[in-house]
Amino acid sequence: MDALRFREEVKPADIRAVRCIVESSGLFREEETEIAVELVRESLSRGAASGYHFVFAEKKTAVVGYCCYGPIPCTARRYDLYWIAVSPGEQGKGLGTELLRFCEGKIAALGGERIYVETSSRQSYDATRRFYRKRGYRREAVLADFYAPGDSKIILVKVLGKNDLPPDPLLCL
Amino acid sequence: MDALRFREEVKPADIRAVRCIVESSGLFREEETEIAVELVRESLSRGAASGYHFVFAEKKTAVVGYCCYGPIPCTARRYDLYWIAVSPGEQGKGLGTELLRFCEGKIAALGGERIYVETSSRQSYDATRRFYRKRGYRREAVLADFYAPGDSKIILVKVLGKNDLPPDPLLCL
Repeated sequence: MDALRFREEVKPADIRAVRCIVESSGLFREEETEIAVELVRESLSRGAASGYHFVFAEKKTAVVGYCCYGPIPCTARRYDLYWIAVSPGEQGKGLGTELLRFCEGKIAALGGERIYVETSSRQSYDATRRFYRKRGYRREAVLADFYAPGDSKIILVKVLGKNDLPPDPLLCL
Repeated sequence: MDALRFREEVKPADIRAVRCIVESSGLFREEETEIAVELVRESLSRGAASGYHFVFAEKKTAVVGYCCYGPIPCTARRYDLYWIAVSPGEQGKGLGTELLRFCEGKIAALGGERIYVETSSRQSYDATRRFYRKRGYRREAVLADFYAPGDSKIILVKVLGKNDLPPDPLLCL
């Protein structure tokens, strides 16, 4: 099995990689894909000032999953987990969990205390919500009919604790 | 009394006007002021693509209040009211209400169905929350300790109805 590496530096080729991963997941609308790609562009052009941090999971040189997070402006030590996606061929192998743990560790290392995730009430997101619930995220609020009639926004939160340690530096390029 | 006019076009001088109004309100932190100003800059440099719409209330040529709103990405006909602020000398005269009504009418004209407002549970925002409640906004969700320990985010929503008509075009420059 090819070794998995995490990379935090953003490269121009990540624009295409992120588009490919997000599109192929089949979970996101075109407008959502464009936003995912836009965050990569923002990070490339503005660096840390963009407020977007990335973690790319690579096997050899192929990006097989990624995560995007960042501090929430005007809050004290609160972070948004904007995006986490894994290539269809790599799903079901624990990569999402590894990416999430890695990001949580990075956020903890940055002094983060709470992580927020926004998701949809649509049935296609059932697995996504289960994924977060199993990993310590609880439902904090529901905005009824937020995305569209019958499609609510569900806001999840995880309060970081002692077990959410910074990731092992050896894992990261 | 000088006549009040509403202007939607954004001018470079609005950067200073917005900073002045937001700072002088005494309600916002420095980081929040910077964000308010950044939205004006974004609108100036990217136009409609920025997603930020502005309404400036003017007396003669002085900006005495303003409002910023925009469509929420990846939603169907949902809008965020990002900002509404009135110069201290003009407060208590109904200008905030006029600005809000004008914006609601514009949002209704754009096909908007719901308007979201985010505010803080801090005591200094009591009047702000009363202002919205009186004007048809209801509490939709609370994110406990969102901004900081003891400082929660309160999300308000107004579902637009038949009475939220587009503004009289004569009011607008």
